[in-house]
Amino acid sequence: MVKNERFEPRWINEAPQEKSFRSIFKYGAPNGFKHPNFRLFQEIKATFDLSDSDFEQYTSTGNEVVDFQLKSKLTEYQIKKFSEISGNENISADEYERLKFSTGKTVEEAIKLRTKQVEQITDLVIHPRNKEEIKQIVDFCNVEKLPIYIFGGGSSVNLGFLPEKGGVTLVLSTHLNKIIQLNEKNQTVIVEAGMFGPAFEEALNNAKKLFKTKHNFTCGHFPQSFEYSSVGGWFVTLGSGQQSSYYGDAGDLVLGVEMITPQGTIVTKNYAATATGPKVLDIIKGSEGVFGIVVELTWKIFRYKLENRKYFSFIFPTWEAAVEASREISQGEFGMPAVFRISDPEETHIGLKLYGIEDTIFDKLMIFRGYKPMQRCLFLASADGEKLFTKNIKNQVKRICKKHGAMSLTAFPVKKWEPGRYRDPYMREDLMDFGIIIDTLETSVYWDNLHEVHEKCRNYVKSRPKTICMTHASHFYMQGTNLYFIFIIKENDLKSYLAFQEGLIDTIEKSGGSLSHHHGVGRMIARLMPKHLGESQMNVLKALKKHFDPNNIMNAGKQLGLDVSYK
Amino acid sequence: MVKNERFEPRWINEAPQEKSFRSIFKYGAPNGFKHPNFRLFQEIKATFDLSDSDFEQYTSTGNEVVDFQLKSKLTEYQIKKFSEISGNENISADEYERLKFSTGKTVEEAIKLRTKQVEQITDLVIHPRNKEEIKQIVDFCNVEKLPIYIFGGGSSVNLGFLPEKGGVTLVLSTHLNKIIQLNEKNQTVIVEAGMFGPAFEEALNNAKKLFKTKHNFTCGHFPQSFEYSSVGGWFVTLGSGQQSSYYGDAGDLVLGVEMITPQGTIVTKNYAATATGPKVLDIIKGSEGVFGIVVELTWKIFRYKLENRKYFSFIFPTWEAAVEASREISQGEFGMPAVFRISDPEETHIGLKLYGIEDTIFDKLMIFRGYKPMQRCLFLASADGEKLFTKNIKNQVKRICKKHGAMSLTAFPVKKWEPGRYRDPYMREDLMDFGIIIDTLETSVYWDNLHEVHEKCRNYVKSRPKTICMTHASHFYMQGTNLYFIFIIKENDLKSYLAFQEGLIDTIEKSGGSLSHHHGVGRMIARLMPKHLGESQMNVLKALKKHFDPNNIMNAGKQLGLDVSYK
Repeated sequence: MVKNERFEPRWINEAPQEKSFRSIFKYGAPNGFKHPNFRLFQEIKATFDLSDSDFEQYTSTGNEVVDFQLKSKLTEYQIKKFSEISGNENISADEYERLKFSTGKTVEEAIKLRTKQVEQITDLVIHPRNKEEIKQIVDFCNVEKLPIYIFGGGSSVNLGFLPEKGGVTLVLSTHLNKIIQLNEKNQTVIVEAGMFGPAFEEALNNAKKLFKTKHNFTCGHFPQSFEYSSVGGWFVTLGSGQQSSYYGDAGDLVLGVEMITPQGTIVTKNYAATATGPKVLDIIKGSEGVFGIVVELTWKIFRYKLENRKYFSFIFPTWEAAVEASREISQGEFGMPAVFRISDPEETHIGLKLYGIEDTIFDKLMIFRGYKPMQRCLFLASADGEKLFTKNIKNQVKRICKKHGAMSLTAFPVKKWEPGRYRDPYMREDLMDFGIIIDTLETSVYWDNLHEVHEKCRNYVKSRPKTICMTHASHFYMQGTNLYFIFIIKENDLKSYLAFQEGLIDTIEKSGGSLSHHHGVGRMIARLMPKHLGESQMNVLKALKKHFDPNNIMNAGKQLGLDVSYK
Repeated sequence: MVKNERFEPRWINEAPQEKSFRSIFKYGAPNGFKHPNFRLFQEIKATFDLSDSDFEQYTSTGNEVVDFQLKSKLTEYQIKKFSEISGNENISADEYERLKFSTGKTVEEAIKLRTKQVEQITDLVIHPRNKEEIKQIVDFCNVEKLPIYIFGGGSSVNLGFLPEKGGVTLVLSTHLNKIIQLNEKNQTVIVEAGMFGPAFEEALNNAKKLFKTKHNFTCGHFPQSFEYSSVGGWFVTLGSGQQSSYYGDAGDLVLGVEMITPQGTIVTKNYAATATGPKVLDIIKGSEGVFGIVVELTWKIFRYKLENRKYFSFIFPTWEAAVEASREISQGEFGMPAVFRISDPEETHIGLKLYGIEDTIFDKLMIFRGYKPMQRCLFLASADGEKLFTKNIKNQVKRICKKHGAMSLTAFPVKKWEPGRYRDPYMREDLMDFGIIIDTLETSVYWDNLHEVHEKCRNYVKSRPKTICMTHASHFYMQGTNLYFIFIIKENDLKSYLAFQEGLIDTIEKSGGSLSHHHGVGRMIARLMPKHLGESQMNVLKALKKHFDPNNIMNAGKQLGLDVSYK
């Protein structure tokens, strides 16, 4: 193998062709890129036993224009009706549009579209202009028994809005994307479900100017999908942001919603706490569109005090030490860091390459001090809140980390990580252009089964020769945390890939992890829901489904494992 | 009116007669007393225009032995069956026992029992020995269509377990009162639903000794009813403790439950967070026994670090200033005080008498500095957690309070308040012995409607001549707080009293408060549930009820407003 020190693949660095398959499955902004850096590229070649020449030809790019023809199954009467409701300019039966708004961000979908395999797509895309139109659409679809699917930001990684049974797809972000009201006294906003992360956060960050408030605010929710996900989607899928250990998960950040269902509209109260029976709001959390359409949310907001933020990073000698320190922090009762993230040895190994730390003075110091590659573990954190509160968190974390054998890496690594944190998924397309798959699965664990779940899942992934398997924990609670698995494999065959993925989902479940910490269920892991939750809990969900949606039109087919037969 | 400076009424200071009505309705420990102190007594006389001679004769004491006869409506076959399940020594059809376990702690019930009015009582009391027996009982009752009521600690103030339709009452505290497992690593305990507060907390405080743990722990939940309420009751009624602003409400403190229903048993997962659809655990929160019987709970525990606790109290010039400072604290993001309590001017007035502060050096200093009686407002707080965390909370609170015109009263008032905090309700019997009623109602408010709700409710209470109306807020959130109304009126007539109470509940609801912050719904405020939540939310609750309990046997009749008709 001839080693070309400076060879880099021709990573595609331009926006996909207009109306191409690639324009649909490409992650994130059309013009957004984050290519694997040289060090990561070398690692991948070494792992998969590849040479530079393997990166000269694209396996597939999917950059061809969508050209299939598939007539909408809706009747003319139905299409006319939707046109009357939302205006002709807000409906589309065009194949490209229908494919686009039927597609999420799973590897499965990307592989299919790279090879022009089109399966289930919606029969009509509708961009409703307001919630009144949505009510009309839901009522009409309920009469017609037409399935409805909801496209929020489109970042689902579990086929969460795949139009399994055709029907119509409602795109909420086109028109329902505004803050309706900001209440400074209560520190809440009422926001439309289709608003995307960046616009939402920017408006809150500029509240003084935009809303004449005394403070600027933050939404506190920053999932990796932040750039292309919507406030409503965050909530109905029970998402979790990268600063959740301080701000809470999406389910904690919502005080009330308006949801439109075939049984009518529900508007919940917004009190911070009540004792007026089981909360319907709680039932809507995680409902993933199967009960109805959340159109407005009352979101908690926090004062924006960036000047108080503290950054800190550490390197631990082992994964066990990093986990123990994290538990001590989570149970220490001095407040929680916002970003709070530990990487296992393999992720640390790759991460140091990715964040440009390998071979720097930090790396040399680490090695000199005995923090060995493929044993050492990176800890990245930041603290938000009042100034002395964040200072104390930083000090307490430092004390605990040192007690567990860690060395401070200063703020440097977390500051290197932070700006690119939404962009890591952009590497997916680069790798897949050369037949390499990068994908993720994730789970919740207790402190006392964390190592078992981690080991069993790693063993499963590693039982396949030539794989990279990185794991981190990044959402911490007093009682446990999550595990996030990122695996890289060389695979072109969809069936083989799906079998591998299924095996990992099974392994997570069998080893005692939850089926999902924050990706949600969708259709991808739905089959395991009855086993995981038990039939008696599934029957409760089915009873609710039947109540809200007796004709089974809302996100119908497999979602959440609710394959109920009605009547 | 001859003023006898040292006259004190003959407050009853001995345990009620065995098997008397009083032994049933008396609040708290049979031998527990907290009589109105001399200053409060003077205040009451002045308010109600009474003289010492009005306190020479008891209006009623209810200290007569229960002597009514009312045959159980159960068949011999049914009684035999229950005897087979739980043992003859664990069932009772005795009138006294049946009355006792059918009675909660409402003023309504106390008035009735003082005058020997017995209405709805259970037909059989059962003390099940374990959850397997409960399963058998539920199954049998479901076949027989026999209603089941649950007696936890018996402290309900809203007729939450009134056996509206007869049937059987299960007493959980007799046998299901143990910690099953303490998991130090996960900081959780599995506890049986019938365990009372003091036993639970004592075991956790002594975990090192009892469970060989590294730390001692606390449950974090200290409602006023702590001494006579059960862990299961805390959860199913959505209770809130006096340190909730830091530890969270009961609903936040439970990770998982086992619930036995007519449709079978549900065991939820205990993960700190998951995204596997709507959580059945959430549906059980606040279900007040209408779906099934919660028999075991996984409770979050906190390290017990009493040495870090900080106490602090302030006096504010006005209620408005106290509220504004409290909002600033709640939105300040430096962590929350655990005890966090502000009293309005009238409660402050009475509180200073009650805690022995009136006429002390503190009082003189307050008056000297211009904090005027019936304007000034008391702020009591303590902080729990890590040492520097609590220190910072104390400092930040001090800074904010001073900014809003408050003067520090040191730790003195809150330390005076703390030891008696579970005992205030004991005064109820003393006053009612002389025809004076003390009762409470409570609500959730947003910051921006707090004053409106407070004023309207005060106006309502005060529209009745000669009333004391004290209000405090004691459970704080970034978005709002609760209001807790304590009113004292002179009234002997039950009907008049209930009309007055109904009017206040209506006023709370109309003025924009929630129907309850932490007392729950029970039967007392059930009638307003459809108005408050709306029919569409009530229909969701009814659908759940129908699923879990198709024969409507669980806490049947009015509870939560679920008067559904089942086929």
